[in-house]
Amino acid sequence: MLDERLQRTAEAAKSAGCDWAILTNFDSICYALGHAPFIETALSPFAGGPTTAFVRADGACGLVAPNVESAAAQASRADEKIIYEGFAYDHRADIVGNYAAAIAEIKTRLGIGGVLGAEPETLPATLAASLGAERTLDISEPLRRARATKTAEEKALMRRSAMAAAKGQEAFYEWARPGRTELDVFAQVRAAMENFAGERTAVAGDFLSGKARTAGGMGWPISRVIGLNDPLISDLAPRVSGYWGDSCASSVLGTPQDGYLKLFNTAKRALDRALEIMRPGIVAADLDGELRRSVAAAGYSYPHHSGHSIGASVHEWPRLTPYERAPLQEGMFIMVEPAAYDPDIGGVRLEWMIEITATGCRPAAPFEHRPSIGA
Amino acid sequence: MLDERLQRTAEAAKSAGCDWAILTNFDSICYALGHAPFIETALSPFAGGPTTAFVRADGACGLVAPNVESAAAQASRADEKIIYEGFAYDHRADIVGNYAAAIAEIKTRLGIGGVLGAEPETLPATLAASLGAERTLDISEPLRRARATKTAEEKALMRRSAMAAAKGQEAFYEWARPGRTELDVFAQVRAAMENFAGERTAVAGDFLSGKARTAGGMGWPISRVIGLNDPLISDLAPRVSGYWGDSCASSVLGTPQDGYLKLFNTAKRALDRALEIMRPGIVAADLDGELRRSVAAAGYSYPHHSGHSIGASVHEWPRLTPYERAPLQEGMFIMVEPAAYDPDIGGVRLEWMIEITATGCRPAAPFEHRPSIGA
Repeated sequence: MLDERLQRTAEAAKSAGCDWAILTNFDSICYALGHAPFIETALSPFAGGPTTAFVRADGACGLVAPNVESAAAQASRADEKIIYEGFAYDHRADIVGNYAAAIAEIKTRLGIGGVLGAEPETLPATLAASLGAERTLDISEPLRRARATKTAEEKALMRRSAMAAAKGQEAFYEWARPGRTELDVFAQVRAAMENFAGERTAVAGDFLSGKARTAGGMGWPISRVIGLNDPLISDLAPRVSGYWGDSCASSVLGTPQDGYLKLFNTAKRALDRALEIMRPGIVAADLDGELRRSVAAAGYSYPHHSGHSIGASVHEWPRLTPYERAPLQEGMFIMVEPAAYDPDIGGVRLEWMIEITATGCRPAAPFEHRPSIGA
Repeated sequence: MLDERLQRTAEAAKSAGCDWAILTNFDSICYALGHAPFIETALSPFAGGPTTAFVRADGACGLVAPNVESAAAQASRADEKIIYEGFAYDHRADIVGNYAAAIAEIKTRLGIGGVLGAEPETLPATLAASLGAERTLDISEPLRRARATKTAEEKALMRRSAMAAAKGQEAFYEWARPGRTELDVFAQVRAAMENFAGERTAVAGDFLSGKARTAGGMGWPISRVIGLNDPLISDLAPRVSGYWGDSCASSVLGTPQDGYLKLFNTAKRALDRALEIMRPGIVAADLDGELRRSVAAAGYSYPHHSGHSIGASVHEWPRLTPYERAPLQEGMFIMVEPAAYDPDIGGVRLEWMIEITATGCRPAAPFEHRPSIGA
């Protein structure tokens, strides 16, 4: 039986009028075929093009990957796998030529032709030319929509990624101390997530200390030394087995002052409100509006979305924004991240992953949101 | 005055018969324009195509980047910068359309046309179509050759990246202890490199413990608990300010046995030999052969290159391989990494970054290679 993700990918291609989906984004390849190589060091100099997946409207599928991704490719769900030589040391490899030859070979083996659906962000000109499609359509949107609710396998993966993020937040509370740099604390946080995952994980998010940096709300950790009474933001998004977790904790290191507690309680009240009202049928924009109004009632606002779906990409459709009219559905996993920022005090953003159930919602891997960390 | 890297990029395009270089690989964009955004989380879902640089044969240049890379783009050396909206929250952004519009706009502003030189691994079909070139040529090879010797600015960057790697190796010797997982030790190693760099750094390389894993020679750290008398390999390649460092240390945790010392001394003898003979004019393949013969004299071999040039990409041209006839030149920075592997004992690989000087060579940031770490 076809994996449900492969089947949904095939149906997305079919519904868009395509005979084949040609996938070149790392997240859609992971989704369709379970091919999840390491992404942290960007395109390898030993690749002649993007790793490429092919899915026919009936679910037949194939994968072209460089030999540096061989182990991940062999573990994937692809029917046909062509591993081309990108890395060699005893002779000069024609890396771009080898990629082209692998594409030509899989085209023949699978009988690729007709109307092709592609992802324009990453579809290489060489690939488009060698496939010689009668017509190529952009299928990004149907692919995004196909992924919005999670399959049974994905639900387990999402909870595990959420748990990895929660382990990171526990380490954040444990290791944040005055005199350590942001990078020192982040290293311990990352180690906690990677030890839980049993592998190196790409990590997106933000890690910030001090009034100015937390009030800005976004940024990677730097060598700034954390001081007593600094506000902190720890936004952790680890990628585990190809699926992203996400989370945000905010705390003061020491004793929080009234102004900070007001920010914290404002964000917390909005997050609590989300848990009360999230259920199948609520429109994303309405949820977004409710959270913004809750924060505005305390005199604050936040210059970003109220949240987003998550899966093989860290930001998926739908997002919680003022314009998004999609209703939430059972099986969606939605990040909710209301916030309150004050340039004179700092910033607080509180985020959980929320799973939409048949009748309401539940946090996928709740960790405690604490206004302060003992110094 | 043009930055020398921009000038060399322009000359590479010109020498290949092109009016413009169209750059879509992150490393060649960093090289030409100093645009070095974070790469660790792969293509952003808020990008409509690869970040793209344009360099005319006379050095005029421009950059198209998504707003999530705005800070890095503004700090770049591009004459014309077009930042398109990829991330938005108060309205729906047409991300792919915005990328296309930015390309059309920069084409007009810079007057892009004629013969275009491109990088086929990453040239998107959408970009090729909207530029509508009379002819597009692959300029990867001249670009690679232009980068082989380092400019004065790059030499400082390379020494700093090598120093970051050396800091990582010091942390490796300090933190590797029985009972810790590979990931625990790697976290401390990474923190040392990132604190030195003052930023998060992408890290390539290998981190391995135990007989079987080190004898295999390659792999990321996992949650394996390191034991007393385990052989260890710590191959660390951090990317600092867009330039990669690299390095490899190998040690036993405890008291090395004779068999391990033989492996260690074999690799060390080959590395010492490299330092004796590396100078301008020596052919890469001859150096490779000398190191292989040195290791073979002790009864060992290694199934990988003897080393490689390094810069804005972790593996650059030329590599030290049996087929590479390029002579080394003053100003090259070459990784040298002879090794000896024995399935019954484990593996040892010892690597330094070596700068080729006018009359010989010197290590860029030497750290000690120690056969053992006190347990």
